[in-house]
Amino acid sequence: MSNFSQFETKIGVRPDDIDMNQHVHNSKYFDYVLAARYDQMSRCYGMSMEKFLERGFSWVVRSSYMEHKRPLRLGDTAIIQTQVDEIQARSVRVAFLISKESDNRTVAKGWLEYVMVDANSGRPKTIPDDVVSAYSV
Amino acid sequence: MSNFSQFETKIGVRPDDIDMNQHVHNSKYFDYVLAARYDQMSRCYGMSMEKFLERGFSWVVRSSYMEHKRPLRLGDTAIIQTQVDEIQARSVRVAFLISKESDNRTVAKGWLEYVMVDANSGRPKTIPDDVVSAYSV
Amino acid sequence: MSNFSQFETKIGVRPDDIDMNQHVHNSKYFDYVLAARYDQMSRCYGMSMEKFLERGFSWVVRSSYMEHKRPLRLGDTAIIQTQVDEIQARSVRVAFLISKESDNRTVAKGWLEYVMVDANSGRPKTIPDDVVSAYSV
Amino acid sequence: MSNFSQFETKIGVRPDDIDMNQHVHNSKYFDYVLAARYDQMSRCYGMSMEKFLERGFSWVVRSSYMEHKRPLRLGDTAIIQTQVDEIQARSVRVAFLISKESDNRTVAKGWLEYVMVDANSGRPKTIPDDVVSAYSV
Repeated sequence: MSNFSQFETKIGVRPDDIDMNQHVHNSKYFDYVLAARYDQMSRCYGMSMEKFLERGFSWVVRSSYMEHKRPLRLGDTAIIQTQVDEIQARSVRVAFLISKESDNRTVAKGWLEYVMVDANSGRPKTIPDDVVSAYSV
Repeated sequence: MSNFSQFETKIGVRPDDIDMNQHVHNSKYFDYVLAARYDQMSRCYGMSMEKFLERGFSWVVRSSYMEHKRPLRLGDTAIIQTQVDEIQARSVRVAFLISKESDNRTVAKGWLEYVMVDANSGRPKTIPDDVVSAYSV
Repeated sequence: MSNFSQFETKIGVRPDDIDMNQHVHNSKYFDYVLAARYDQMSRCYGMSMEKFLERGFSWVVRSSYMEHKRPLRLGDTAIIQTQVDEIQARSVRVAFLISKESDNRTVAKGWLEYVMVDANSGRPKTIPDDVVSAYSV
Repeated sequence: MSNFSQFETKIGVRPDDIDMNQHVHNSKYFDYVLAARYDQMSRCYGMSMEKFLERGFSWVVRSSYMEHKRPLRLGDTAIIQTQVDEIQARSVRVAFLISKESDNRTVAKGWLEYVMVDANSGRPKTIPDDVVSAYSV
């Protein structure tokens, strides 16, 4: 992995996350990663999504990749670890690893590429220096 | 039921609506009614949610009641009938009936009470006369 | 309220719970209550949903009522209090109160009526005595 | 793209698909593709998910990739085109393209890799010849 710090968030599986296969619905794993990033933005990087929005910035997903290893079920707690992989002029790639708290085994892994945009126009923006610094921990 | 017109919207069940019990998740039936109302606001009342928002108004749910008769499953199509029940100074009560297209049997029924609010402040507003007229069909 | 015990579960708002109105989507409050009940079934009543399923029983929602007082937003934590209201031969009525952790104010309140069913046939069943006892705390 | 047939499914955006950014929530695009595949399995390949389950088989997602080009909003209808990309002994890769009905522009594209599993044990299975044939259209 990269030289950037790795942060961790715990999320308990909710019954409404379970689908007809009796495990967490595939697309919900992305929501767990999203929840972990929001938590970590304010708690670990000191730059909450609310602060970005106040400055007229937002982050949107440009691309994503995920590999599923084994499912989470009702009663499980997910540990979501994320880590900045690469910072470019207008985008950040974030790697993630989801594991199950009870046995520490890998549930899924992958990455998300976020583009910084103007919150009103939706157009890509150059990431300001102070944001690059905040994420370079 | 009331003297107001009854309108109808069809919604196909999606796999992500199904929960661990192999039928449409309870809370999703409210989302089907919401989708039906949005469709009917623009198609049947000539006042889409977008038009309300442009005028600085929005609708929020104050209370809701639902009785479940039998579930919808994968492959089913829902028919959602709604009808204004009562129009008050600041709120509208809408009755709904969800049935299954294939056998016409009742799936769920109930009502939702919507309050008109200022879209920015969230405070209740008196419903303008032209809106009362539009809904009194 | 009733003489039955009141139990409490905390749930952090996730970004995927937020809708176009910038607050927790209406139908998601039912999912919070569902998550609280699952937690409390195993933690407070000593009868997890899994145990019911092993015995061939399940619970389905027959009816529900909710009043919304004020919304939850991103970053909020919900406190969900539930309490058995009434136990009948084949159903249990559970009252709930959702409040916001930060200021203790009421977000929503209401009740859910659950029917005990045979997990395979879906037909209503008389609630066994030991289940009535477990819930009569 | 591959030599396999391309099939198409239309899905109307529902209000509960919209997130705080006023467009369809990122992870919901995977649910649209899932819904399109279920529709096409029964309508275009003559092998519904129900038939697979009856034979003791199921499909699970092993990996997925998506690029987002522009968002869908309230009132939009999505066109989801899918096409088998590659059939291996135990997995199938399906490419997808999501576009907006109103202007035909690309919303997102990517692929999903599905593994055939034993519906009970969850273990990978060799895809039976008749299934390979059904998908080789």
